[in-house]
Amino acid sequence: APKMITVVHCETPSGTLNPLDELGKIKLRHNVPLIYADVVASLGGAPVLTDEWAIDLALGGSQKCLSAPPGMCFVAISPQAWEVIDQVDYQGYDALKPFKTAQENFYFPYTPYWHGMAALNAAAGRLLDEGLEQSYSRHKKAAEYCRQGLQEMGLSLFPAPGAVQSPTVTAVKVPESITWPELDSRFRLRGLVVGGSYGPLSGKVFRLGHMGSQADLDLVELALDAIRQVV
Amino acid sequence: APKMITVVHCETPSGTLNPLDELGKIKLRHNVPLIYADVVASLGGAPVLTDEWAIDLALGGSQKCLSAPPGMCFVAISPQAWEVIDQVDYQGYDALKPFKTAQENFYFPYTPYWHGMAALNAAAGRLLDEGLEQSYSRHKKAAEYCRQGLQEMGLSLFPAPGAVQSPTVTAVKVPESITWPELDSRFRLRGLVVGGSYGPLSGKVFRLGHMGSQADLDLVELALDAIRQVV
Repeated sequence: APKMITVVHCETPSGTLNPLDELGKIKLRHNVPLIYADVVASLGGAPVLTDEWAIDLALGGSQKCLSAPPGMCFVAISPQAWEVIDQVDYQGYDALKPFKTAQENFYFPYTPYWHGMAALNAAAGRLLDEGLEQSYSRHKKAAEYCRQGLQEMGLSLFPAPGAVQSPTVTAVKVPESITWPELDSRFRLRGLVVGGSYGPLSGKVFRLGHMGSQADLDLVELALDAIRQVV
Repeated sequence: APKMITVVHCETPSGTLNPLDELGKIKLRHNVPLIYADVVASLGGAPVLTDEWAIDLALGGSQKCLSAPPGMCFVAISPQAWEVIDQVDYQGYDALKPFKTAQENFYFPYTPYWHGMAALNAAAGRLLDEGLEQSYSRHKKAAEYCRQGLQEMGLSLFPAPGAVQSPTVTAVKVPESITWPELDSRFRLRGLVVGGSYGPLSGKVFRLGHMGSQADLDLVELALDAIRQVV
């Protein structure tokens, strides 16, 4: 029997949002002990309801929607996951167990990365000051504006018609009339650096991030202007 | 046949420096393909001659003798080690292989941690400005001054008589007349926080770090003063 479901919430290569709530239900229906979700590119930009969706481990990162420097990751852990962690009793450098009592005992298991903690604390404070709902709505508006502008230029979005498009990143098909290296260099000449793709999507899809402080209509408009001049 | 020797150069719990040069010779004599040395607590404070000592992988950290913020690690890799890395062909997140062409191609395999890179660059520049030999000599003097002061107070050093005492950290026996928690709290009352020990040395040994910017006779003297008032 499977021991864990692993899933990426916001899949940046395809610009889609996977249905964590449905996957949590599948976990419960099939008695899979754990579901581990990578919410790195959604946390702060879209709702992540770990308790309601029965997500046991939710892994976040500092450098996406939180707009803090890269280098910090953090994980939300359910009571059921702590039970499994205790049973497994793994003690390596990448083990979660030593962190169970860290907050209670004021004892950080390894060298504390104070600068990263301070930056993450500032980023989380900024997000709470704005309000989570307001942040989600800001990301949604930026994404909609981005998608609409691209489609008005005749560009095609990558996500399939039924897919939930991510509020934090837009994946766009490279037009057939141009190669990706040529498109990329034309973008760069206009000061726009976008994400390319890897593996099967290499050269076929590019990505526009609108996460955290970049989920801003003025910034999206600047990017759209640069794209308009090229295509 | 063994595939790799792993060793810690400066062993902070015991305050000793292991003979990497001798271990490199053992590697060559017994045809062990690789030797992996943790030089985290020695790099910058003591010579680390990877080529002369036939060390294939030398792992460093930002937060010890380099006195940069924690969060960065880096590894020096020999041509022989690159051959093994190519053969193993491991591609996981902790793989070395994607970094082989990183510098040449100007392509960092994962999210670059710019802030850490900048800090590490500044720390390395500071070390080169001082001069490596000068830094080693500064660490040696600070360590000797520390050991002498402690012994003059009647304290015993932990390293065995034949051991090479580390120039970056001094391990001291907790006197029999006092418990470690009591000693620790008396130190803290005087503004001195020293490292305790874990496992078999727990409560028996404490450690004074004199690494990087802390390898400074005035700072060592301040620590010795606080210790003098207690013992």
